[in-house]
Amino acid sequence: MKTLATQMITPEDLLKHWQGHRNLTRRVIELFPEKDFFEFSIGGMRTFSGLTTELLSIGSPALKAIINRNDQAYSENIGELKTKADFLQKWDEATEEINQNWGKLTIEDFNETFNLFGQYEFPIIQNILYFIDNEIHHRGQGYVYLRALGIAPPFFWER
Amino acid sequence: MKTLATQMITPEDLLKHWQGHRNLTRRVIELFPEKDFFEFSIGGMRTFSGLTTELLSIGSPALKAIINRNDQAYSENIGELKTKADFLQKWDEATEEINQNWGKLTIEDFNETFNLFGQYEFPIIQNILYFIDNEIHHRGQGYVYLRALGIAPPFFWER
Repeated sequence: MKTLATQMITPEDLLKHWQGHRNLTRRVIELFPEKDFFEFSIGGMRTFSGLTTELLSIGSPALKAIINRNDQAYSENIGELKTKADFLQKWDEATEEINQNWGKLTIEDFNETFNLFGQYEFPIIQNILYFIDNEIHHRGQGYVYLRALGIAPPFFWER
Repeated sequence: MKTLATQMITPEDLLKHWQGHRNLTRRVIELFPEKDFFEFSIGGMRTFSGLTTELLSIGSPALKAIINRNDQAYSENIGELKTKADFLQKWDEATEEINQNWGKLTIEDFNETFNLFGQYEFPIIQNILYFIDNEIHHRGQGYVYLRALGIAPPFFWER
């Protein structure tokens, strides 16, 4: 094992940060009424199930693609998810997969450039920060949907 | 000067990441019609000027507080901003201040615990990631406001 120098942030802490966000998103999914999860939207935007499909198509599949340096195209083929419970189950499977795969990344890997989905050629750390940012962005939209439905969203800082 | 070991992310890249997000938020502010920036909201939430006031009360003031290890309380006293142009000017001033102050942080600082605003006792890196996440979260809400107003927001990946 190599000795690590002082890091801005450690891989362990970044995983915790990401999973904290994912846990908050899970709670937002849970708060949607079943029907509204699939039907409600504002201003022609996607429903929260649509946005969640995107998040599920990135997170775990993208991390796997990074580990295997597989530049397969982006796809939202994540299986037939028909109920909120289906989405939550898929979410939990992804949580486990991310935890399993994270340890396969070395510090050096984070600095390597990889062409994610054959389309996003950036250092791996940038791709991972993008997953997190993109989830926060869409979840913020979910907060507005919940408020518009008269439902109080969770506190942003509760992970 | 110390030799830096391989970093997950460098301070320079984290600043660029943050300022990229701040630049995107600036474009969202610009896209709001003057009146709607101060009046439009959904589901009882704050207007986008209200959310921007929060972002301006965190970003640069919080970074200054960190540099000076000053645990003064959080305050939204950022001066009288009456127009969108006032907000944009304040935004640009904050951009410069952040650039100026960033270099005063060492790698070791990011790992130090500090009680930001006398209230948020976390490693400095966690506080800074929180600023960025909080901005993405609220800007995502601004995207819904824009869509509800029939205005196309900027692409999320354009920084």
